Amino acid sequence: MTVLGAPAAPAVLTSAELSQVDAQWRAANYLAACQIYLMDNPLLETPLEPEHVKPRLLGHWGTSPGLNFVYAHLNRAIVRRSLNAMFVTGPGHGGPALYANTWLEGSYSEAWPEVSYDKSGLRTLFRQFSFPGGVPSHVAPQVPGSIHEGGELGYSLAHAYGAAFDNPHLVVGCVVGDGEAETGPLATSWHSGKFLNPAHDGAVLPILHLNGHKIANPTVLSRISGTELDELLRGYGYAPRYVEGDDPAVMHQAMAAALDGALDEIDGIQVRARAATGPAGPATWPMIVLRSPKGWTGPSLVDGKRVEGSWRSHQVPIPDARGNPEHRRQLEEWLRSYRPELLFDEEGRPTSEVTALIPRGDLRMGSSPHANGGLVLRPLRLPEVSAHAIPLVSPGGAVAEPTRVLGRWLRDVFALNRKAANFRLFGPDETASNRLDAVFDVTGKTWLCEIEPVDEHLAADGRVMEILSENLCQGWLEGYLLSGRHGLFSCYEAFVHIVDSMLNQHVKWLKVHRGIPWRRPVASLTYLLTSHVWRQDHNGFSHQDPGFVDHVANKSPEVVRVYLPPDANTLLWVAEHCLRSRDYVNVIVAGKNDSPIWLDGEEAAVHCARGAGIWEWAGTHPDSEPDVVLACAGDAPTVEVLAAAKILREYLPELAVRVVNVVDLMRLQPAAEHPHGMTDREFDALFTTDRPVIFAYHGYPWLIHRLAYRRANHDDMHVRGYIEHGTTTTPFDMLVRNDMDRFQLVTDVIDRVPGLVARAGAVRQRMTDARERHHRWIVEHGDDLPEVRDWAWES
Amino acid sequence: MTVLGAPAAPAVLTSAELSQVDAQWRAANYLAACQIYLMDNPLLETPLEPEHVKPRLLGHWGTSPGLNFVYAHLNRAIVRRSLNAMFVTGPGHGGPALYANTWLEGSYSEAWPEVSYDKSGLRTLFRQFSFPGGVPSHVAPQVPGSIHEGGELGYSLAHAYGAAFDNPHLVVGCVVGDGEAETGPLATSWHSGKFLNPAHDGAVLPILHLNGHKIANPTVLSRISGTELDELLRGYGYAPRYVEGDDPAVMHQAMAAALDGALDEIDGIQVRARAATGPAGPATWPMIVLRSPKGWTGPSLVDGKRVEGSWRSHQVPIPDARGNPEHRRQLEEWLRSYRPELLFDEEGRPTSEVTALIPRGDLRMGSSPHANGGLVLRPLRLPEVSAHAIPLVSPGGAVAEPTRVLGRWLRDVFALNRKAANFRLFGPDETASNRLDAVFDVTGKTWLCEIEPVDEHLAADGRVMEILSENLCQGWLEGYLLSGRHGLFSCYEAFVHIVDSMLNQHVKWLKVHRGIPWRRPVASLTYLLTSHVWRQDHNGFSHQDPGFVDHVANKSPEVVRVYLPPDANTLLWVAEHCLRSRDYVNVIVAGKNDSPIWLDGEEAAVHCARGAGIWEWAGTHPDSEPDVVLACAGDAPTVEVLAAAKILREYLPELAVRVVNVVDLMRLQPAAEHPHGMTDREFDALFTTDRPVIFAYHGYPWLIHRLAYRRANHDDMHVRGYIEHGTTTTPFDMLVRNDMDRFQLVTDVIDRVPGLVARAGAVRQRMTDARERHHRWIVEHGDDLPEVRDWAWES
Repeated sequence: MTVLGAPAAPAVLTSAELSQVDAQWRAANYLAACQIYLMDNPLLETPLEPEHVKPRLLGHWGTSPGLNFVYAHLNRAIVRRSLNAMFVTGPGHGGPALYANTWLEGSYSEAWPEVSYDKSGLRTLFRQFSFPGGVPSHVAPQVPGSIHEGGELGYSLAHAYGAAFDNPHLVVGCVVGDGEAETGPLATSWHSGKFLNPAHDGAVLPILHLNGHKIANPTVLSRISGTELDELLRGYGYAPRYVEGDDPAVMHQAMAAALDGALDEIDGIQVRARAATGPAGPATWPMIVLRSPKGWTGPSLVDGKRVEGSWRSHQVPIPDARGNPEHRRQLEEWLRSYRPELLFDEEGRPTSEVTALIPRGDLRMGSSPHANGGLVLRPLRLPEVSAHAIPLVSPGGAVAEPTRVLGRWLRDVFALNRKAANFRLFGPDETASNRLDAVFDVTGKTWLCEIEPVDEHLAADGRVMEILSENLCQGWLEGYLLSGRHGLFSCYEAFVHIVDSMLNQHVKWLKVHRGIPWRRPVASLTYLLTSHVWRQDHNGFSHQDPGFVDHVANKSPEVVRVYLPPDANTLLWVAEHCLRSRDYVNVIVAGKNDSPIWLDGEEAAVHCARGAGIWEWAGTHPDSEPDVVLACAGDAPTVEVLAAAKILREYLPELAVRVVNVVDLMRLQPAAEHPHGMTDREFDALFTTDRPVIFAYHGYPWLIHRLAYRRANHDDMHVRGYIEHGTTTTPFDMLVRNDMDRFQLVTDVIDRVPGLVARAGAVRQRMTDARERHHRWIVEHGDDLPEVRDWAWES
Repeated sequence: MTVLGAPAAPAVLTSAELSQVDAQWRAANYLAACQIYLMDNPLLETPLEPEHVKPRLLGHWGTSPGLNFVYAHLNRAIVRRSLNAMFVTGPGHGGPALYANTWLEGSYSEAWPEVSYDKSGLRTLFRQFSFPGGVPSHVAPQVPGSIHEGGELGYSLAHAYGAAFDNPHLVVGCVVGDGEAETGPLATSWHSGKFLNPAHDGAVLPILHLNGHKIANPTVLSRISGTELDELLRGYGYAPRYVEGDDPAVMHQAMAAALDGALDEIDGIQVRARAATGPAGPATWPMIVLRSPKGWTGPSLVDGKRVEGSWRSHQVPIPDARGNPEHRRQLEEWLRSYRPELLFDEEGRPTSEVTALIPRGDLRMGSSPHANGGLVLRPLRLPEVSAHAIPLVSPGGAVAEPTRVLGRWLRDVFALNRKAANFRLFGPDETASNRLDAVFDVTGKTWLCEIEPVDEHLAADGRVMEILSENLCQGWLEGYLLSGRHGLFSCYEAFVHIVDSMLNQHVKWLKVHRGIPWRRPVASLTYLLTSHVWRQDHNGFSHQDPGFVDHVANKSPEVVRVYLPPDANTLLWVAEHCLRSRDYVNVIVAGKNDSPIWLDGEEAAVHCARGAGIWEWAGTHPDSEPDVVLACAGDAPTVEVLAAAKILREYLPELAVRVVNVVDLMRLQPAAEHPHGMTDREFDALFTTDRPVIFAYHGYPWLIHRLAYRRANHDDMHVRGYIEHGTTTTPFDMLVRNDMDRFQLVTDVIDRVPGLVARAGAVRQRMTDARERHHRWIVEHGDDLPEVRDWAWES
């Protein structure tokens, strides 16, 4: 194995330090192994008996000793330098290591007093691990000091960078697993260094842990040549330092030297950048490559097969320690090899040698306030929504591009919170395309590479984060939020599915986080989905997918919220509400194209606060029970429903029509199933119990059925929406193709209101004719009938 | 800009060739620009008038000239070397270029006779582009020669490698956009070269097109230093050749030299590998970096702002050519700069100079049979399912691990198709974990890097593709299928959401593909989702998500199929059915843990062919109308429903219970909405119109409501499923937490059957007691009540 740039391992540790850091490491290794195996006899005070061993052995040993090694060395650096550091655990199933280290430093027992800092606490610590109702085998929200679970792989570096932005005094140590490094999100996350400004951001120290094996395979990065690996990491913009081997004494000195060197380098970069008057291009950041055996210090051979240094140490290295005496003997020998009697006193507390290089107070990584972001969260100062609202002439009488209006409000959000430096906007190269570009009046797009004259709005200290990777945008934002700041992710609606799985993990994190008493509320993750399904005039079918809302609706109801503001003024209200909220995932769907204003600022506030309501001005015969309810959710559906209502008023004036608009989609669910859900009484008051409801919905129509199937009137709800009939075409033609156009909605009303078809046959025919006129017109003109762009309600 | 390793551009092209390749390039550029602008006057035979210009200008110019440049040079190489090549267009919105080139070579008119190879055809070609009902602005299935749309970015290299596997004589030219290169999937796709065996696979020639800009930003790879870029690409395992500049004559010579050099290198790698007796590590494959201006040859300045070489050329470089005379003049000048009169004859056919270096017949990239995979598809030879079925002792009397049984069948699939070399198994490091490891009896996992003694089942010629990237597994498989081969993707259920968005794009591709007469059916993309939500005993909450089925169910019904085989024998039947199918996306959800066999091989075949049916042996009083229907879909729900039926038979023998099992989930939809949907008559025959249905479903319960809400009996359907109550716990405790355990199901029956609660109060109490016994037991033993593992139906 070629060792590139490896330092000659000068003896940076004194012999006392070497002994202390090794004791700390051994103690953590002991605790990690015990979590997998022991139910009792935590200090091995008596010989190991079958009943001390758990009946079901679950957990992952392989990655733990390497994590413990890094943690111990970071601890030493923290103590020696009063470093402000956080730890991000990339490798999956690193749980045993982090439970061990946070317990050793005392953070765990402070967070969870029932896992006390003594022998009884150790017993609980071991027993709860991978035990029914206990704690999982990865670094879940239960672990103090963590903002990253690692249950699904690939997001560690993005989370680490997210935490480092605008945290100038923080160093985030991020262990990247070599399996994880094969994922797409991680592979592009290395580029994050180019978006980190040493003048006002903190630093990330990536530690690529090459332990060589995944579940059942070698890893790619561990088996390419040392030259290739070095080129790859330098190509990503890093200066790697290598720590390679398996002899603990040698490795301790090498790691201490590498870490000191890397931290000195970070200091230098920051000092230079902070003294300079302008940017000097992205820094070449240090990183460490730690090549150590998988399952290091674990059993070498079990049943004659190699375990240490192989994929066989990934999970439980000795499989039958309860039933098989030889296995149990080997387990005991292994555990005793750490010499627990030198590591813990009789009470089960770590000895002074173990704790000598463990930091105190908030410098403990398990107690970092940045990893419990709510502790450092400062509420955003938010501009008045009313000052940005578009004046209402008459419903539909004025038009605006909703996201452009929002952009002006967001510009003021940036301005008001400039000093706090705690708000960023994230998006994949789409801020301008999504018409939020007013923000560039007050801030730029983060860019540390070369800036050429043709470029616009790039700046080393920009607060708009753009890279063509939805994964990285989401990962950065998650890290930024969980470390106590605020943000917004604007994304093309169709392509936000790229982060479906990251959304899952974040919602799960928040759900668990909400139930943990010492975790403080953090700012919600808010998506602005725009460039949506109804306006992909030339991108066509591949850009049409409104299903993210369906995906989100499956998640824990206490966490998820979905808003479909029908115009620019309601969008403002919703965005303000979302940026004030805590511990949620909010999804806002809004258009970017010119569309009508339906409500003035005050009406918008009242309507959005209710989440759904009757628009009396749009209906007829408000004093009688309606003959039909026209419901809508989303901007395009609202335009069509109002156009349909207008047609009905003109042609069938005797019909009692009620128009209902839904902004907060979760209002449709039963109150028992979602905190925003309406009671049946509220629902029936809007939708009646026995009149046909023609519902035009922004997305897949069956989502409305899935939300409302328990309602009294559900059998008479008829939903129109996107039914996957997409192509390159005009906005109105999209509606026609999916049977959600005004003419179809009027036809639906005629067909569904009992007895109406008999007397409204002529109107029905007009509707059919209008659709045919549309078909002929579009073939000839390549554009929509001019009449469908007339939005004014009062003619 | 440092130019690294750039060849000195020797004059490899004769002056005739230079002139020919340039004519071809100019012709393609002309056609690309005209598609964006012109409705008429396709050869500019008269001065350009407003009515010749489209009223709505949509499309993307920026990337087209670079794509045309690569296409022309590949054409020359094909002609000179009789090369068998395919073209993959990574950059989004490259449509104009590919429509242009495939039209020039005649492939387009052969595929679409209405777009004839003459002036009238040109007019149609231009008019249809980004026109309502026309063709989209990216390389959609309508483009002959394409297997890759590029509507969403990041999958080009993965698709290219997928096409190259097992195609020893194919070279896939893959243009990677520099925007696309920022995505996660693309960033890890570079590693694919390490999984390509030059002895029996073809080659991929990546051409990284650095045109510098995305929609509104510079790209990362275009602004890092040349040294860093070179290190990055070498680190990924390539030997880059650089072609950089903007002077066409110089660039033509440089590109021809680079391409000849790269193709020679590929030849050399293949010749050496094919002559050698064993593997020699992964090759260092050549690649080309093409650095050319965005919007090259387009207008330099428009309205005083720089367009060529900037992000302003991304879409429509001259915005108002119809209305603004100066813009129109500039457009005409631009179009005439290509000298169309020298490129097309009076009939509108390309001149001999243009076509001199265009290949003929199947060597035209637009006519490659590999890009219309159905043309080269050979059906798989599939082993007899019956030979692998587990004998039925009595229902539940035998147990098997379903995926292990499937693994043996898959082993035989590999064996039977060894010679055809047209089947591969894909998965993220999970083949063994998912218990399909019998396949390793006959094939290995593809691995060209170093193999160490501790490794198992690695082989340079292995047919199992494992890398820890769901994105890459999916991308490879898509490329492999669309180029006419077969495969299966096995994945942890929760993490398959990583490819949600890729699934969207593939389903959209297939939907359009199915409507194109000249596209021949390809093998379906089949997912095996295992390690599912109900068996995450120690991984816990982060590994629990059954929502991929919900996501799939939103997609085009003509494409998607979902199967939930309840045991190993039904899994065999379903897998066989899926591997025989064409043009679908199939999702199979199956467990890997020991679970009971319910049907023998023959019964399994009948039951699966029906997709849903009554299990009479499990019910009571088969001759009378049931009092209640117990329905199930999925392996864990089936176990619980049968256990509940057993309890009911014992304690409430007078109750008429019907057990219905659903394998093919889409059977639940109305026949009008899905080709597999049951008619109402069929549905009612299973589920009755008026008896309570207690339905235990594998995933989120509301999916069943969304599928069945139109059914007569829907209001009396009560669905249990996963309601996001997850943690680290035992299998039975998961059921209890989500209220899908047998005791709850019996309680549901008692509560829902009219009048039953009055006479079955004691049984109901027993159920409550049983749940409490469970809670006590699990706290004490950390394991399930032994009784819940007794599956035998006949006691």
